Amino acid sequence: MTLQRSLLEKNDRLAEQNRGFFRAKKLLVLNMVSSPGSGKTTFIRETAAKLAGRLRVGVIVGDLATDNDAARLRTAGIPVVQITTGTVCHLDSEMVSKAAAQLDLEKLDVLVIENVGNLVCPADYDLGEDLRVVLLSVTEGEDKPLKYPPMFHSAHVAVVTKSDMAAAAGFDRKLALANLQRVSHHARIFELSSKTGEGMKAWLDYLVEQRAAAKAGQK
Amino acid sequence: MTLQRSLLEKNDRLAEQNRGFFRAKKLLVLNMVSSPGSGKTTFIRETAAKLAGRLRVGVIVGDLATDNDAARLRTAGIPVVQITTGTVCHLDSEMVSKAAAQLDLEKLDVLVIENVGNLVCPADYDLGEDLRVVLLSVTEGEDKPLKYPPMFHSAHVAVVTKSDMAAAAGFDRKLALANLQRVSHHARIFELSSKTGEGMKAWLDYLVEQRAAAKAGQK
Repeated sequence: MTLQRSLLEKNDRLAEQNRGFFRAKKLLVLNMVSSPGSGKTTFIRETAAKLAGRLRVGVIVGDLATDNDAARLRTAGIPVVQITTGTVCHLDSEMVSKAAAQLDLEKLDVLVIENVGNLVCPADYDLGEDLRVVLLSVTEGEDKPLKYPPMFHSAHVAVVTKSDMAAAAGFDRKLALANLQRVSHHARIFELSSKTGEGMKAWLDYLVEQRAAAKAGQK
Repeated sequence: MTLQRSLLEKNDRLAEQNRGFFRAKKLLVLNMVSSPGSGKTTFIRETAAKLAGRLRVGVIVGDLATDNDAARLRTAGIPVVQITTGTVCHLDSEMVSKAAAQLDLEKLDVLVIENVGNLVCPADYDLGEDLRVVLLSVTEGEDKPLKYPPMFHSAHVAVVTKSDMAAAAGFDRKLALANLQRVSHHARIFELSSKTGEGMKAWLDYLVEQRAAAKAGQK
Protein backbone atom coordinates (compact mmCIF):
# COMPACT_ATOMS: atom_id res chain seq x y z
CA MET A 1 0.00 0.00 0.00
CA THR A 2 1.31 3.43 -0.96
CA LEU A 3 0.16 5.08 2.23
CA GLN A 4 1.87 2.43 4.33
CA ARG A 5 5.07 2.78 2.31
CA SER A 6 5.15 6.54 2.70
CA LEU A 7 4.63 6.24 6.47
CA LEU A 8 7.57 3.85 6.64
CA GLU A 9 9.76 6.12 4.55
CA LYS A 10 8.99 9.02 6.85
CA ASN A 11 9.84 6.84 9.84
CA ASP A 12 13.11 5.69 8.28
CA ARG A 13 14.27 9.25 7.61
CA LEU A 14 13.55 10.29 11.16
CA ALA A 15 15.26 7.12 12.41
CA GLU A 16 18.46 8.28 10.71
CA GLN A 17 18.14 11.66 12.42
CA ASN A 18 17.77 9.86 15.75
CA ARG A 19 20.81 7.73 14.92
CA GLY A 20 22.93 10.79 14.20
CA PHE A 21 21.68 12.56 17.30
CA PHE A 22 22.40 9.60 19.57
CA ARG A 23 25.83 9.18 17.97
CA ALA A 24 26.68 12.79 18.76
CA LYS A 25 25.69 12.10 22.36
CA LYS A 26 27.98 9.03 22.39
CA LEU A 27 25.09 6.82 23.49
CA LEU A 28 24.77 3.11 22.86
CA VAL A 29 21.10 2.66 21.92
CA LEU A 30 19.26 -0.67 22.16
CA ASN A 31 15.79 -1.38 20.71
CA MET A 32 14.47 -4.27 22.80
CA VAL A 33 11.64 -6.33 21.33
CA SER A 34 9.81 -9.53 22.29
CA SER A 35 6.45 -11.17 22.94
CA PRO A 36 4.46 -9.76 25.81
CA GLY A 37 5.74 -11.36 29.00
CA SER A 38 9.21 -12.42 27.86
CA GLY A 39 10.72 -10.48 30.73
CA LYS A 40 11.96 -7.27 29.07
CA THR A 41 11.40 -4.96 32.04
CA THR A 42 13.03 -7.24 34.62
CA PHE A 43 15.95 -7.83 32.23
CA ILE A 44 16.45 -4.07 31.75
CA ARG A 45 16.21 -3.43 35.49
CA GLU A 46 18.82 -6.10 36.29
CA THR A 47 21.07 -4.94 33.45
CA ALA A 48 21.00 -1.35 34.73
CA ALA A 49 21.59 -2.43 38.33
CA LYS A 50 24.53 -4.66 37.45
CA LEU A 51 26.12 -2.01 35.21
CA ALA A 52 26.03 0.58 37.99
CA GLY A 53 29.49 2.15 38.42
CA ARG A 54 30.46 1.16 34.88
CA LEU A 55 27.69 2.51 32.63
CA ARG A 56 24.66 4.71 33.28
CA VAL A 57 21.47 3.36 31.72
CA GLY A 58 18.29 5.28 30.83
CA VAL A 59 15.10 3.77 29.45
CA ILE A 60 12.22 4.68 27.12
CA VAL A 61 9.30 2.29 27.64
CA GLY A 62 6.45 1.72 25.20
CA ASP A 63 3.08 0.18 26.04
CA LEU A 64 -0.45 0.48 24.71
CA ALA A 65 -1.63 1.47 28.18
CA THR A 66 -0.43 1.82 31.81
CA ASP A 67 2.86 3.13 33.12
CA ASN A 68 3.51 -0.03 35.17
CA ASP A 69 6.87 -0.72 33.53
CA ALA A 70 8.10 2.84 33.96
CA ALA A 71 7.04 2.72 37.61
CA ARG A 72 8.95 -0.52 38.14
CA LEU A 73 12.11 0.96 36.61
CA ARG A 74 11.75 4.30 38.38
CA THR A 75 11.48 2.52 41.73
CA ALA A 76 14.87 0.97 40.94
CA GLY A 77 16.33 4.47 40.45
CA ILE A 78 16.58 4.28 36.66
CA PRO A 79 15.81 7.41 34.57
CA VAL A 80 12.76 6.46 32.48
CA VAL A 81 10.14 7.94 30.15
CA GLN A 82 6.91 6.07 29.38
CA ILE A 83 5.23 6.27 25.97
CA THR A 84 1.64 5.03 25.81
CA THR A 85 0.68 4.23 22.23
CA GLY A 86 -3.09 3.74 22.61
CA THR A 87 -3.85 1.11 19.98
CA VAL A 88 -0.56 1.32 18.05
CA CYS A 89 1.39 -1.94 18.19
CA HIS A 90 4.94 -0.52 17.93
CA LEU A 91 7.03 2.55 18.69
CA ASP A 92 8.13 4.84 15.87
CA SER A 93 11.05 7.24 15.45
CA GLU A 94 9.02 10.34 16.24
CA MET A 95 7.75 8.93 19.55
CA VAL A 96 11.34 8.00 20.48
CA SER A 97 12.69 11.41 19.52
CA LYS A 98 10.12 13.21 21.68
CA ALA A 99 10.62 10.84 24.62
CA ALA A 100 14.43 11.14 24.43
CA ALA A 101 14.07 14.91 24.78
CA GLN A 102 12.63 14.32 28.25
CA LEU A 103 15.76 12.50 29.46
CA ASP A 104 19.04 14.12 30.51
CA LEU A 105 21.08 12.29 27.87
CA GLU A 106 24.37 13.88 28.98
CA LYS A 107 24.13 11.74 32.10
CA LEU A 108 23.63 8.46 30.22
CA ASP A 109 25.89 5.99 28.42
CA VAL A 110 23.26 3.49 27.31
CA LEU A 111 19.69 4.19 26.21
CA VAL A 112 17.40 1.17 26.18
CA ILE A 113 14.15 1.47 24.24
CA GLU A 114 11.71 -1.15 25.51
CA ASN A 115 9.34 -1.58 22.58
CA VAL A 116 5.69 -2.67 22.78
CA GLY A 117 5.44 -6.42 23.47
CA ASN A 118 4.84 -7.71 19.96
CA LEU A 119 6.79 -10.00 17.62
CA VAL A 120 5.32 -8.57 14.40
CA CYS A 121 4.74 -4.82 14.08
CA PRO A 122 7.97 -3.43 15.59
CA ALA A 123 10.02 -5.33 12.99
CA ASP A 124 9.33 -2.72 10.29
CA TYR A 125 10.18 0.32 12.40
CA ASP A 126 13.78 1.43 12.66
CA LEU A 127 14.04 3.73 15.69
CA GLY A 128 17.62 4.83 15.13
CA GLU A 129 19.05 2.19 17.45
CA ASP A 130 22.56 0.72 17.28
CA LEU A 131 21.43 -2.76 18.21
CA ARG A 132 18.08 -4.49 17.92
CA VAL A 133 17.80 -7.01 20.74
CA VAL A 134 15.11 -9.71 20.56
CA LEU A 135 14.18 -11.72 23.66
CA LEU A 136 12.91 -15.29 23.60
CA SER A 137 11.87 -16.76 26.92
CA VAL A 138 12.22 -20.50 27.51
CA THR A 139 8.47 -20.78 28.23
CA GLU A 140 7.44 -19.57 24.75
CA GLY A 141 8.42 -22.54 22.66
CA GLU A 142 11.46 -23.22 20.55
CA ASP A 143 9.86 -22.44 17.18
CA LYS A 144 9.21 -18.72 17.64
CA PRO A 145 12.15 -17.67 15.39
CA LEU A 146 10.65 -19.74 12.56
CA LYS A 147 7.17 -18.29 13.11
CA TYR A 148 8.22 -14.64 13.33
CA PRO A 149 11.07 -14.46 10.82
CA PRO A 150 11.09 -10.69 10.07
CA MET A 151 11.65 -9.82 13.72
CA PHE A 152 14.23 -12.51 14.46
CA HIS A 153 16.01 -11.99 11.14
CA SER A 154 16.43 -8.26 11.79
CA ALA A 155 17.92 -8.69 15.27
CA HIS A 156 21.58 -7.99 16.03
CA VAL A 157 21.32 -9.78 19.35
CA ALA A 158 19.04 -12.61 20.55
CA VAL A 159 18.68 -13.23 24.28
CA VAL A 160 17.18 -16.44 25.62
CA THR A 161 15.58 -15.38 28.93
CA LYS A 162 14.17 -17.14 32.01
CA SER A 163 16.77 -19.92 31.71
CA ASP A 164 16.01 -20.79 35.37
CA MET A 165 12.62 -22.12 34.16
CA ALA A 166 14.01 -24.24 31.32
CA ALA A 167 13.50 -27.59 33.06
CA ALA A 168 9.97 -26.75 34.27
CA ALA A 169 9.04 -25.64 30.75
CA GLY A 170 10.57 -28.69 29.07
CA PHE A 171 12.69 -26.31 26.98
CA ASP A 172 14.61 -27.97 24.13
CA ARG A 173 17.72 -25.78 24.18
CA LYS A 174 19.42 -27.43 21.22
CA LEU A 175 16.38 -26.98 19.00
CA ALA A 176 15.85 -23.37 20.09
CA LEU A 177 19.48 -22.46 19.35
CA ALA A 178 19.32 -24.20 15.97
CA ASN A 179 16.17 -22.22 15.10
CA LEU A 180 17.78 -18.98 16.24
CA GLN A 181 20.90 -19.67 14.22
CA ARG A 182 18.77 -20.42 11.18
CA VAL A 183 16.69 -17.20 11.28
CA SER A 184 18.73 -14.74 13.37
CA HIS A 185 21.89 -15.80 11.60
CA HIS A 186 23.70 -12.50 12.08
CA ALA A 187 22.80 -12.33 15.73
CA ARG A 188 24.99 -12.70 18.78
CA ILE A 189 23.18 -15.08 21.13
CA PHE A 190 23.06 -14.90 24.94
CA GLU A 191 21.32 -17.28 27.35
CA LEU A 192 20.53 -16.01 30.83
CA SER A 193 18.20 -15.61 33.78
CA SER A 194 17.47 -12.13 35.12
CA LYS A 195 16.17 -13.79 38.29
CA THR A 196 19.22 -15.87 39.23
CA GLY A 197 21.82 -13.79 37.40
CA GLU A 198 23.08 -16.87 35.53
CA GLY A 199 24.61 -15.85 32.20
CA MET A 200 24.34 -12.12 32.84
CA LYS A 201 28.09 -11.47 32.94
CA ALA A 202 28.68 -12.20 29.24
CA TRP A 203 25.80 -9.87 28.31
CA LEU A 204 27.10 -7.04 30.54
CA ASP A 205 30.65 -7.38 29.22
CA TYR A 206 29.26 -7.23 25.69
CA LEU A 207 27.44 -3.96 26.45
CA VAL A 208 30.57 -2.42 27.96
CA GLU A 209 32.52 -3.37 24.85
CA GLN A 210 29.78 -2.08 22.48
CA ARG A 211 29.50 1.19 24.36
CA ALA A 212 33.29 1.67 24.19
CA ALA A 213 33.09 1.19 20.40
CA ALA A 214 30.18 3.63 20.22
CA LYS A 215 32.13 6.22 22.20
CA ALA A 216 35.16 5.79 19.96
CA GLY A 217 32.92 6.28 16.91
CA GLN A 218 33.69 2.76 15.69
CA LYS A 219 30.17 1.46 15.59
CA MET B 1 -7.13 6.95 8.68
CA THR B 2 -9.80 6.61 5.99
CA LEU B 3 -8.09 3.73 4.24
CA GLN B 4 -7.75 1.81 7.49
CA ARG B 5 -11.40 2.44 8.33
CA SER B 6 -12.62 1.24 4.96
CA LEU B 7 -10.52 -1.95 5.28
CA LEU B 8 -12.08 -2.60 8.67
CA GLU B 9 -15.59 -1.97 7.35
CA LYS B 10 -15.01 -4.44 4.55
CA ASN B 11 -13.72 -6.97 7.08
CA ASP B 12 -16.72 -6.45 9.36
CA ARG B 13 -19.24 -7.04 6.56
CA LEU B 14 -17.52 -10.26 5.55
CA ALA B 15 -17.34 -11.29 9.21
CA GLU B 16 -21.14 -11.11 9.38
CA GLN B 17 -21.34 -13.32 6.27
CA ASN B 18 -19.05 -15.81 7.98
CA ARG B 19 -21.20 -15.65 11.11
CA GLY B 20 -24.37 -16.42 9.15
CA PHE B 21 -22.66 -19.20 7.23
CA PHE B 22 -21.29 -20.85 10.38
CA ARG B 23 -24.68 -20.51 12.07
CA ALA B 24 -26.35 -22.32 9.18
CA LYS B 25 -23.80 -25.10 9.63
CA LYS B 26 -24.63 -25.24 13.38
CA LEU B 27 -20.99 -24.73 14.26
CA LEU B 28 -19.67 -23.22 17.47
CA VAL B 29 -16.80 -20.97 16.32
CA LEU B 30 -13.98 -19.80 18.59
CA ASN B 31 -11.41 -17.11 17.74
CA MET B 32 -8.43 -17.90 19.94
CA VAL B 33 -5.93 -15.11 20.58
CA SER B 34 -2.88 -14.63 22.80
CA SER B 35 0.79 -13.69 22.95
CA PRO B 36 3.15 -15.92 21.03
CA GLY B 37 3.93 -18.91 23.24
CA SER B 38 0.90 -18.86 25.55
CA GLY B 39 0.14 -22.43 24.60
CA LYS B 40 -2.70 -22.07 22.06
CA THR B 41 -1.82 -25.09 19.93
CA THR B 42 -1.34 -27.49 22.85
CA PHE B 43 -4.57 -26.22 24.43
CA ILE B 44 -6.50 -26.79 21.18
CA ARG B 45 -5.00 -30.26 20.75
CA GLU B 46 -5.93 -31.29 24.30
CA THR B 47 -9.40 -29.76 23.97
CA ALA B 48 -10.08 -31.70 20.78
CA ALA B 49 -8.72 -34.94 22.23
CA LYS B 50 -10.78 -34.67 25.40
CA LEU B 51 -13.97 -33.76 23.49
CA ALA B 52 -13.66 -36.86 21.29
CA GLY B 53 -16.94 -38.80 21.31
CA ARG B 54 -18.85 -35.69 22.35
CA LEU B 55 -17.91 -32.98 19.85
CA ARG B 56 -15.88 -33.01 16.65
CA VAL B 57 -13.34 -30.18 16.46
CA GLY B 58 -11.70 -28.67 13.36
CA VAL B 59 -9.05 -25.97 13.32
CA ILE B 60 -7.90 -23.05 11.18
CA VAL B 61 -4.39 -21.97 12.18
CA GLY B 62 -2.79 -18.61 11.38
CA ASP B 63 0.92 -17.87 11.45
CA LEU B 64 3.26 -15.50 9.65
CA ALA B 65 5.32 -18.45 8.50
CA THR B 66 5.68 -22.24 8.90
CA ASP B 67 2.97 -24.89 9.14
CA ASN B 68 4.38 -26.27 12.42
CA ASP B 69 1.13 -25.80 14.32
CA ALA B 70 -0.98 -27.43 11.61
CA ALA B 71 1.44 -30.34 11.53
CA ARG B 72 1.19 -30.77 15.31
CA LEU B 73 -2.62 -30.83 15.15
CA ARG B 74 -2.77 -33.06 12.08
CA THR B 75 -0.54 -35.61 13.80
CA ALA B 76 -3.18 -35.72 16.56
CA GLY B 77 -5.84 -36.57 13.94
CA ILE B 78 -7.52 -33.17 13.96
CA PRO B 79 -8.82 -31.69 10.65
CA VAL B 80 -6.78 -28.53 10.12
CA VAL B 81 -6.05 -25.81 7.55
CA GLN B 82 -3.00 -23.56 7.88
CA ILE B 83 -3.05 -19.92 6.79
CA THR B 84 0.35 -18.25 6.43
CA THR B 85 -0.02 -14.48 6.52
CA GLY B 86 3.48 -13.40 5.44
CA THR B 87 3.96 -10.14 7.35
CA VAL B 88 0.33 -9.57 8.39
CA CYS B 89 -0.13 -9.65 12.16
CA HIS B 90 -3.71 -10.99 12.31
CA LEU B 91 -6.23 -13.10 10.42
CA ASP B 92 -9.13 -11.43 8.62
CA SER B 93 -12.59 -12.61 7.59
CA GLU B 94 -11.64 -13.31 4.00
CA MET B 95 -8.73 -15.57 4.98
CA VAL B 96 -11.03 -17.45 7.34
CA SER B 97 -13.77 -17.81 4.74
CA LYS B 98 -11.35 -19.28 2.21
CA ALA B 99 -9.74 -21.60 4.75
CA ALA B 100 -13.11 -22.84 6.04
CA ALA B 101 -14.01 -23.87 2.47
CA GLN B 102 -11.16 -26.39 2.67
CA LEU B 103 -12.68 -28.18 5.68
CA ASP B 104 -15.57 -30.64 5.62
CA LEU B 105 -17.73 -28.53 7.94
CA GLU B 106 -20.60 -31.05 7.91
CA LYS B 107 -18.37 -33.33 9.97
CA LEU B 108 -17.58 -30.71 12.61
CA ASP B 109 -19.34 -29.29 15.67
CA VAL B 110 -16.71 -26.81 16.79
CA LEU B 111 -14.39 -24.72 14.62
CA VAL B 112 -11.41 -23.22 16.42
CA ILE B 113 -9.57 -20.38 14.70
CA GLU B 114 -6.08 -20.10 16.15
CA ASN B 115 -5.14 -16.51 15.38
CA VAL B 116 -1.61 -15.17 14.89
CA GLY B 117 0.19 -14.89 18.25
CA ASN B 118 -0.29 -11.20 18.94
CA LEU B 119 -2.07 -9.23 21.66
CA VAL B 120 -2.67 -6.12 19.55
CA CYS B 121 -3.61 -6.45 15.87
CA PRO B 122 -6.21 -9.28 16.02
CA ALA B 123 -8.34 -7.19 18.44
CA ASP B 124 -9.78 -5.08 15.61
CA TYR B 125 -10.68 -7.96 13.32
CA ASP B 126 -14.00 -9.73 13.81
CA LEU B 127 -13.78 -13.09 12.01
CA GLY B 128 -17.43 -14.06 12.44
CA GLU B 129 -16.76 -16.09 15.59
CA ASP B 130 -19.25 -16.82 18.36
CA LEU B 131 -16.68 -16.50 21.12
CA ARG B 132 -13.40 -14.68 21.30
CA VAL B 133 -11.12 -16.58 23.67
CA VAL B 134 -7.99 -14.88 25.02
CA LEU B 135 -5.24 -16.92 26.67
CA LEU B 136 -2.94 -15.61 29.39
CA SER B 137 -0.18 -17.95 30.54
CA VAL B 138 1.08 -17.76 34.12
CA THR B 139 4.62 -17.06 32.87
CA GLU B 140 3.64 -13.81 31.11
CA GLY B 141 3.00 -11.57 34.10
CA GLU B 142 -0.20 -10.55 35.82
CA ASP B 143 -0.50 -7.11 34.23
CA LYS B 144 -1.07 -8.14 30.61
CA PRO B 145 -4.83 -7.35 30.70
CA LEU B 146 -4.00 -3.78 31.77
CA LYS B 147 -1.36 -3.40 29.09
CA TYR B 148 -3.42 -4.79 26.19
CA PRO B 149 -6.93 -3.53 27.03
CA PRO B 150 -8.56 -3.71 23.56
CA MET B 151 -7.84 -7.42 23.25
CA PHE B 152 -8.78 -8.39 26.77
CA HIS B 153 -11.81 -6.11 26.82
CA SER B 154 -13.20 -7.68 23.65
CA ALA B 155 -12.88 -11.27 24.88
CA HIS B 156 -15.90 -13.40 25.81
CA VAL B 157 -13.69 -15.92 27.54
CA ALA B 158 -10.30 -15.59 29.27
CA VAL B 159 -8.25 -18.71 29.92
CA VAL B 160 -5.30 -18.69 32.33
CA THR B 161 -2.97 -21.38 30.93
CA LYS B 162 0.10 -23.30 32.16
CA SER B 163 -1.24 -23.32 35.72
CA ASP B 164 1.19 -26.18 36.45
CA MET B 165 4.02 -23.61 36.19
CA ALA B 166 2.42 -21.03 38.51
CA ALA B 167 4.74 -21.68 41.45
CA ALA B 168 7.91 -21.75 39.33
CA ALA B 169 6.86 -18.46 37.70
CA GLY B 170 5.95 -16.80 41.01
CA PHE B 171 2.48 -16.17 39.57
CA ASP B 172 0.28 -13.87 41.68
CA ARG B 173 -3.10 -15.48 40.97
CA LYS B 174 -5.17 -13.03 42.96
CA LEU B 175 -3.67 -10.03 41.16
CA ALA B 176 -4.04 -11.66 37.72
CA LEU B 177 -7.72 -12.44 38.32
CA ALA B 178 -8.35 -8.92 39.63
CA ASN B 179 -6.75 -7.47 36.48
CA LEU B 180 -8.78 -9.80 34.25
CA GLN B 181 -12.00 -8.89 36.02
CA ARG B 182 -11.18 -5.22 35.63
CA VAL B 183 -10.52 -5.31 31.86
CA SER B 184 -12.24 -8.47 30.59
CA HIS B 185 -15.25 -7.72 32.73
CA HIS B 186 -17.73 -9.53 30.50
CA ALA B 187 -15.53 -12.59 30.22
CA ARG B 188 -16.01 -16.04 31.67
CA ILE B 189 -12.67 -17.01 33.24
CA PHE B 190 -11.08 -20.47 33.29
CA GLU B 191 -7.79 -21.54 34.90
CA LEU B 192 -6.14 -24.69 33.66
CA SER B 193 -3.12 -26.67 32.53
CA SER B 194 -3.17 -28.40 29.15
CA LYS B 195 -0.19 -30.46 30.32
CA THR B 196 -1.64 -31.93 33.53
CA GLY B 197 -5.34 -31.62 32.59
CA GLU B 198 -6.07 -29.68 35.79
CA GLY B 199 -9.09 -27.41 35.28
CA MET B 200 -9.89 -28.74 31.78
CA LYS B 201 -13.26 -30.28 32.75
CA ALA B 202 -15.01 -26.96 33.43
CA TRP B 203 -13.79 -25.64 30.06
CA LEU B 204 -14.93 -28.73 28.14
CA ASP B 205 -18.36 -28.69 29.84
CA TYR B 206 -18.69 -25.02 28.90
CA LEU B 207 -17.98 -25.81 25.23
CA VAL B 208 -20.54 -28.63 25.22
CA GLU B 209 -23.12 -26.26 26.65
CA GLN B 210 -22.24 -23.45 24.23
CA ARG B 211 -22.39 -25.81 21.25
CA ALA B 212 -25.82 -27.05 22.36
CA ALA B 213 -27.02 -23.44 22.47
CA ALA B 214 -25.51 -22.79 19.03
CA LYS B 215 -27.25 -25.87 17.60
CA ALA B 216 -30.56 -24.79 19.11
CA GLY B 217 -30.11 -21.36 17.54
CA GLN B 218 -30.02 -19.70 20.96
CA LYS B 219 -26.67 -18.06 20.68
